[in-house]
Amino acid sequence: MSVSLDHVRELDRQDPLAGFKQRFALPEGVLYLDGNSLGAQPKRAREAVSATMDQWRDELIKGWNQGWFDAPERLGNKLAPLLGAREGEVIVTDNITLNIFKLLGYITGQRRDGRRVVLSEGGNFPTDGYIAQGYCRFGDYEHRFLPEGADLAEHLDGVAVVVLSEVNYRTGRRRDMAAITRLVHAHGAEVIWDLAHSAGALPVDLNGCDARYAVGCTYKYLNGGPGAPAFLYVHRDHQDGGWQPLSGWHGHAAPFAFDADYAPAGDITRFRTGTHSALIYSALEASLDEWADVDMAALREKSLAMTELFRDCLADVLERFGIEDITPPAHERGSQVALIDEAHGFAIVQALIARGVIGDYREPGLLRFGFTPLYLSFEDVWQAARHFREVLESGEYREPRFNVRSAVT
Amino acid sequence: MSVSLDHVRELDRQDPLAGFKQRFALPEGVLYLDGNSLGAQPKRAREAVSATMDQWRDELIKGWNQGWFDAPERLGNKLAPLLGAREGEVIVTDNITLNIFKLLGYITGQRRDGRRVVLSEGGNFPTDGYIAQGYCRFGDYEHRFLPEGADLAEHLDGVAVVVLSEVNYRTGRRRDMAAITRLVHAHGAEVIWDLAHSAGALPVDLNGCDARYAVGCTYKYLNGGPGAPAFLYVHRDHQDGGWQPLSGWHGHAAPFAFDADYAPAGDITRFRTGTHSALIYSALEASLDEWADVDMAALREKSLAMTELFRDCLADVLERFGIEDITPPAHERGSQVALIDEAHGFAIVQALIARGVIGDYREPGLLRFGFTPLYLSFEDVWQAARHFREVLESGEYREPRFNVRSAVT
Repeated sequence: MSVSLDHVRELDRQDPLAGFKQRFALPEGVLYLDGNSLGAQPKRAREAVSATMDQWRDELIKGWNQGWFDAPERLGNKLAPLLGAREGEVIVTDNITLNIFKLLGYITGQRRDGRRVVLSEGGNFPTDGYIAQGYCRFGDYEHRFLPEGADLAEHLDGVAVVVLSEVNYRTGRRRDMAAITRLVHAHGAEVIWDLAHSAGALPVDLNGCDARYAVGCTYKYLNGGPGAPAFLYVHRDHQDGGWQPLSGWHGHAAPFAFDADYAPAGDITRFRTGTHSALIYSALEASLDEWADVDMAALREKSLAMTELFRDCLADVLERFGIEDITPPAHERGSQVALIDEAHGFAIVQALIARGVIGDYREPGLLRFGFTPLYLSFEDVWQAARHFREVLESGEYREPRFNVRSAVT
Repeated sequence: MSVSLDHVRELDRQDPLAGFKQRFALPEGVLYLDGNSLGAQPKRAREAVSATMDQWRDELIKGWNQGWFDAPERLGNKLAPLLGAREGEVIVTDNITLNIFKLLGYITGQRRDGRRVVLSEGGNFPTDGYIAQGYCRFGDYEHRFLPEGADLAEHLDGVAVVVLSEVNYRTGRRRDMAAITRLVHAHGAEVIWDLAHSAGALPVDLNGCDARYAVGCTYKYLNGGPGAPAFLYVHRDHQDGGWQPLSGWHGHAAPFAFDADYAPAGDITRFRTGTHSALIYSALEASLDEWADVDMAALREKSLAMTELFRDCLADVLERFGIEDITPPAHERGSQVALIDEAHGFAIVQALIARGVIGDYREPGLLRFGFTPLYLSFEDVWQAARHFREVLESGEYREPRFNVRSAVT
């Protein structure tokens, strides 16, 4: 390959984040490039979950007064620095789908200008569009898709809210959050940013971009565990907007007063709904405690260096096998590499998985590899590229066993 | 006391459910009468959570194809027999608040008769009313409260949906689900049953009552763990009703096709929203596997015997101290005892907790004790009653330390 093993080992010796890898429990023989789907397990998560199981056993109902009840706010405050947000601006609760619904209701419920259009983007992860459609159907709003690649400015007439991902889940292309937020506000609309592929993948600066509303998940780059709760951000100046539609008792101004009528909490707490799972919060909290030690600028630098390394190692062989590298340039890149091979992409990913190199495949033809600077070394990236090259050059991806698609996914 | 220790020990020897107690991890020195708030921990839950942590660590993203993804349906099917429901009628997902919202949207979205009223009951656990208010506010429906103790038949004019609890969380009073379901249907309305204090507390017969819609939680009598996911039931004949408003990708007819437009799954799966937490599902599944061995008729018999025993042991002293026993008669009773003492109720419960007898207190004046036949023995009940008697007769509840109310709850 164009890069030597000695060179990548030297990169690892110089890596200021190298020490984090030992904080993760990683299976032997696996090169995991799918941390953009489900992050690896921090060792502290294991201990934390075990402690919460002890707490449930020993403290029983008292556990709710010993850190469980206020976990959504406490974890939100731990997450805020990674998002460029302040204390009291982030809450960890429910999932992205539900959090988008809450924000759509919260935002449209405040508008008095008659705008009835909710815009979501084509080519985005579909749940963002699905829930926008659900909201519009039941709230009598009009849902429109922004066509992929279209100029947003030409689609904002009459729009109340637009839902956009900062980093696209397929291509890894990163939008200019500051510029687009300005544009949307200038058109009298609001934007909900989906940070599913940003949070923990790169430095996010919600306050600096004047972003008012955002959601994201914690089980990808943030390593919170399978189905760990999502987060929701509302800028401090926009937290007095009344109800959100999923008005459950945990979002009430006085949840233990058991008043008959709902009254939203005066702060970010209003975005809570009902009872949340203490167990999964403890795994996520353990992970966020690791994140407190991470230098986000160093993370970004390593992320870009890893994606470049992977591409450099493979450039010649990708060209030779007609595989298109659609990874965006560095300043527009998330933390992933995206390749297109409609004929063989599925089989190539399966052949890689058989060698312990875990990436993922999405129709049509997309090979997607996520790079997580906390638990991947440069040598890991180099070895993954070596396997990729061998899979292609040996032709093993043509074996029939790598072309069997599962019934479900 | 009016009942001897020898007698209750004999009851324990004859108890067909006595063997279940050893399947729970219970703290030493605690008599836990708050399983109606948070159930105790099944020993298998510990092992199951540990196994899921192993799975996250070792299988990473593949875990979603190894039982995580279909857990909502699989656990729903395990729960169904406890509710008098059939396979495919129950799904385990989200929380009660969200599940009520989905059903309100699903039901009202199908109506073409112009009825715009959603009725919820005064005196019920407040989140049911809160979310009904949220739904009405955003969907332009009218929310009304059924006054506590009012005749439902007189309040059904123009009503589209009514949300009712089978067992009241304060008094433990059980409604006649079959008769009320008939009444509501005869008035052209639908009823959503909240089974939070029924599921696992007593035999529930949703199909037998011709109930079409229900929700409930799994962290009380079902012992699923703190914040374990809720369930949602829709009768088989009413599952083709179109959208529910919280239309996320897990409820899509083909979630991995990544279609742009939402199309609801054709079955109970449509009530899923977004990604759920595998970890907490594993704790609940371990508990449901224990429930598979439970004879629900024996459970009911023991529950009533325990509540009667507690009341019998205390009848004279309650009268002497002016504490009112509002526990309903057996045929209208859930699995709890409810007492009223507005002057000293809070302090009595605190004094009991100091002795390791965990009940709970709710303003105004309600002392609430839950009886869970799987992990309480008759001797436990007798000993709890003995402590109660001693707390009263010694006057220790008058100590100042038992009158300090916490800031939060």
